[in-house]
Amino acid sequence: MTVMGAGESAKYSCARLNDICEVVLDLDEKYNIERKKFGVVTPTDINYFKSVLSEDRVLTDESEVMPFNIDWIKNCRGQSQVVLKPKTVEEVSQILTHCNAKKLAVCPQGGNTGLVGGSVPVFDEIVLSLALMNKIISLDEISGSLVCEAGCILENLEQHAKEHNLIMPLDLGAKGTCHIGGVNNFEDILKLYRSAKLSLGEILSAFEMADAAAIDACVSSLKLTNPISSYPFYVLIETHGSNETHDSEKLGGFLEQEMASGLILDGTVSSDPNKIHAMWTLRESISTAVLLDGYVFKYDVSLPLKDYYKLVPKLKQRLGPTARRVCGYGHIGDGNIHINVSIPAYDKRTLEMLEPFIYEEVAKLDGSISAEHGIGFRKPHYIHYSKDATSLQLMKDIKQLMDPNGILNPYKVLPD
Amino acid sequence: MTVMGAGESAKYSCARLNDICEVVLDLDEKYNIERKKFGVVTPTDINYFKSVLSEDRVLTDESEVMPFNIDWIKNCRGQSQVVLKPKTVEEVSQILTHCNAKKLAVCPQGGNTGLVGGSVPVFDEIVLSLALMNKIISLDEISGSLVCEAGCILENLEQHAKEHNLIMPLDLGAKGTCHIGGVNNFEDILKLYRSAKLSLGEILSAFEMADAAAIDACVSSLKLTNPISSYPFYVLIETHGSNETHDSEKLGGFLEQEMASGLILDGTVSSDPNKIHAMWTLRESISTAVLLDGYVFKYDVSLPLKDYYKLVPKLKQRLGPTARRVCGYGHIGDGNIHINVSIPAYDKRTLEMLEPFIYEEVAKLDGSISAEHGIGFRKPHYIHYSKDATSLQLMKDIKQLMDPNGILNPYKVLPD
Ligand SMILES: Cc1cc2nc3c(=O)[nH]c(=O)nc-3n(C[C@H](O)[C@H](O)[C@H](O)COP(=O)(O)OP(=O)(O)OC[C@H]3O[C@@H](n4cnc5c(N)ncnc54)[C@H](O)[C@@H]3O)c2cc1C
Ligand SMILES: Cc1cc2nc3c(=O)[nH]c(=O)nc-3n(C[C@H](O)[C@H](O)[C@H](O)COP(=O)(O)OP(=O)(O)OC[C@H]3O[C@@H](n4cnc5c(N)ncnc54)[C@H](O)[C@@H]3O)c2cc1C
Repeated sequence: MTVMGAGESAKYSCARLNDICEVVLDLDEKYNIERKKFGVVTPTDINYFKSVLSEDRVLTDESEVMPFNIDWIKNCRGQSQVVLKPKTVEEVSQILTHCNAKKLAVCPQGGNTGLVGGSVPVFDEIVLSLALMNKIISLDEISGSLVCEAGCILENLEQHAKEHNLIMPLDLGAKGTCHIGGVNNFEDILKLYRSAKLSLGEILSAFEMADAAAIDACVSSLKLTNPISSYPFYVLIETHGSNETHDSEKLGGFLEQEMASGLILDGTVSSDPNKIHAMWTLRESISTAVLLDGYVFKYDVSLPLKDYYKLVPKLKQRLGPTARRVCGYGHIGDGNIHINVSIPAYDKRTLEMLEPFIYEEVAKLDGSISAEHGIGFRKPHYIHYSKDATSLQLMKDIKQLMDPNGILNPYKVLPD
Repeated sequence: MTVMGAGESAKYSCARLNDICEVVLDLDEKYNIERKKFGVVTPTDINYFKSVLSEDRVLTDESEVMPFNIDWIKNCRGQSQVVLKPKTVEEVSQILTHCNAKKLAVCPQGGNTGLVGGSVPVFDEIVLSLALMNKIISLDEISGSLVCEAGCILENLEQHAKEHNLIMPLDLGAKGTCHIGGVNNFEDILKLYRSAKLSLGEILSAFEMADAAAIDACVSSLKLTNPISSYPFYVLIETHGSNETHDSEKLGGFLEQEMASGLILDGTVSSDPNKIHAMWTLRESISTAVLLDGYVFKYDVSLPLKDYYKLVPKLKQRLGPTARRVCGYGHIGDGNIHINVSIPAYDKRTLEMLEPFIYEEVAKLDGSISAEHGIGFRKPHYIHYSKDATSLQLMKDIKQLMDPNGILNPYKVLPD
């Protein structure tokens, strides 16, 4: 998994700004919500911020502020006019004390790669960018624990860890071996997963699946190469152990066994870092590739494994020819599936066919409406499918306790 | 690691009740605290509880209630006169609604094996025993996730998991291989730990250490056998992988290398379940063995690895001949060290030499005053060495929000 950090995503947004503006709709237009009664930033506030930070860390120029208003999947656009870039905890504290006193709303932003609209302002909230809080505080080589500031980019942490002979457990390591294979139906994938856990045990570091429609997006839109022939389902299995000979023995034995049993129909395996990179690129490009279909409704839900793939065919049937593509891919290991539905251009009727239907179905199957991407701006209205009223009230009370004026990232996570 | 559950510990307390009563001091006597203004249980309350639960699940007989008043290390004794044993969430809810309305304080109790006095009442709090809430709700064989009620005993869960070819990651598994070895000084242990992480990687499942005084307690008081000769420090290394041949190859290679390098001076290795059991028994008996010295002050702190063992010699020096034994043992992997100080009989002056001294030292070394045992009744007065005033206030506010009358386990965790 590669998660982009601040620098990258900001650059990307800048470069594509003209394309973006056609696709992105303002949030209030799309969702019909009202600005709450927060203060409005005045020149006095700006001067105060400039006195706390240096002048160049208070952005007010429209073109400079713009990338911070738009999220990574170009799904949400806010209207902030100020971005603050503190470097220290003390600066953050002074900014927040001031904002709280003046009831100015604030939207904290890390790498702005979140996928649920949580990281961009909705109206004119001040963006508090953590991008410059990127210091690595310590790395204890014996225990392997790293302490860093909130704005660090994963790739930099990875590099730093590598210099000390360590890896970040959030990403692909150097000694990994990767296999990509076709299988025929979803039941076989579950059987394969069980078998992989038994045979590969502690060295199994990833078990990812994607359906044909997802892989097809990469091949046809991004011109990536699918290393094997066409199948209804694909799995990417990665192992990551401390002894290469042992690992390839384990993986080899497992693949042999499952090719013989018929669970794996075709496959390619590699421990060459370039080839591994290519396999992961295929898997990781799905999300971007589907964006090129036009407009994409992206869902990230978790479901019990036995029902993991059930919603994809159900949605395909429900939408019929309206949808350009309905595809599913995700991490079998933790029950998280990403369901993407693409149409040529944003259309409210499709949205209404999808929501709340999909969340109702998830609740029926005892799943969670948000797997790993959070609730953000996009899901507060659906959180009740996963959390009961008592829990929600408690969450609100705790939020109220810590943020009595509600200035921190309003309109997100908790429904009104 | 074996954690005892409700049944076992209750039985143990009953059997040894006469011995115990001489050792255990009442909390209020030892700590000089005052009962808060809660309600007092009346016959009407008892009748209500009997109407919610069946009669046999409301214990009021002194001898029946007694074991629930005394904690596992015989360090704290409460004065409760009622134990309630609900079987369902609905029963718990009815009990707590009643107690909240009548401002009756409640102390929830699981297996009563906690080590910081959190699980026993201080005054006359009602004990809410979870012992009968011991149903396994589900086990998903594909994902390996188990859902159970709060009163389940680890050993039973383990048995259940085993029947489905799974293990509880909290305990020793069937395929493990275990090594116990002597090394000369603490620096060598850290070197050995780094080397073990590199060579054994993902199959390293435990790296435990104990000093000579700790092992000596097991040998001299419990007559257990130390499988190797005498050394200042011992380590127990356990591996746990999916392929026995690979595992023993890795462990063999590692041991050979480190015997040659001189980091390991002597050792025994085994994959025979009985021998492994014996090695773990030695490690796990330390806590009990030290109890036989008389009275034991037990500390569970975490420290940065480079300073992991520093406090033991410091305390030994500070106490001089006052202490019968000062020993240290624990889990190197997570920086947790258990420091035990034994004296012939409880004595307030020794306590005053130890506390707050030990917590001040832990704070100086940037450690945590509670590693894995929690704060409970024994550490609220020292929590400020690890948490600042703002965090503590926030914790109190959250507690107040959820438990406005403060009836749930009063006198614990948060200082007044
Ligand atoms: C290509 C791609 C692949 C991804 N793959 C995965 C995946 O495999 N698994 C997965 O879990 N996720 C995945 N994600 C989503 C992932 O969760 C986010 O990309 C990432 O974790 C967000 O980090 P960020 O710094 O960009 O946060 P942002 O997007 O900037 O912010 C996310 C939220 O956190 C808040 N926030 C940020 N920093 C702070 C702070 N310091 N204090 C308080 N609040 C803060 C923001 O206000 C916002 O609500 C993927 C995203 C992309 C673009
Ligand atoms: C021999 C031995 C070895 C140990 N080894 C370890 C170890 O290696 N690592 C480690 O972390 N710990 C260890 N411990 C301590 C361990 O944390 C506890 O033994 C165990 O986790 C406590 O479980 P219990 O059910 O006995 O809880 P109890 O002792 O009954 O309760 C502990 C606390 O939780 C509260 N509580 C219990 N159930 C509930 C509930 N359902 N809802 C709300 N509150 C509740 C109680 O009021 C109390 O404050 C060891 C203890 C022993 C005796």
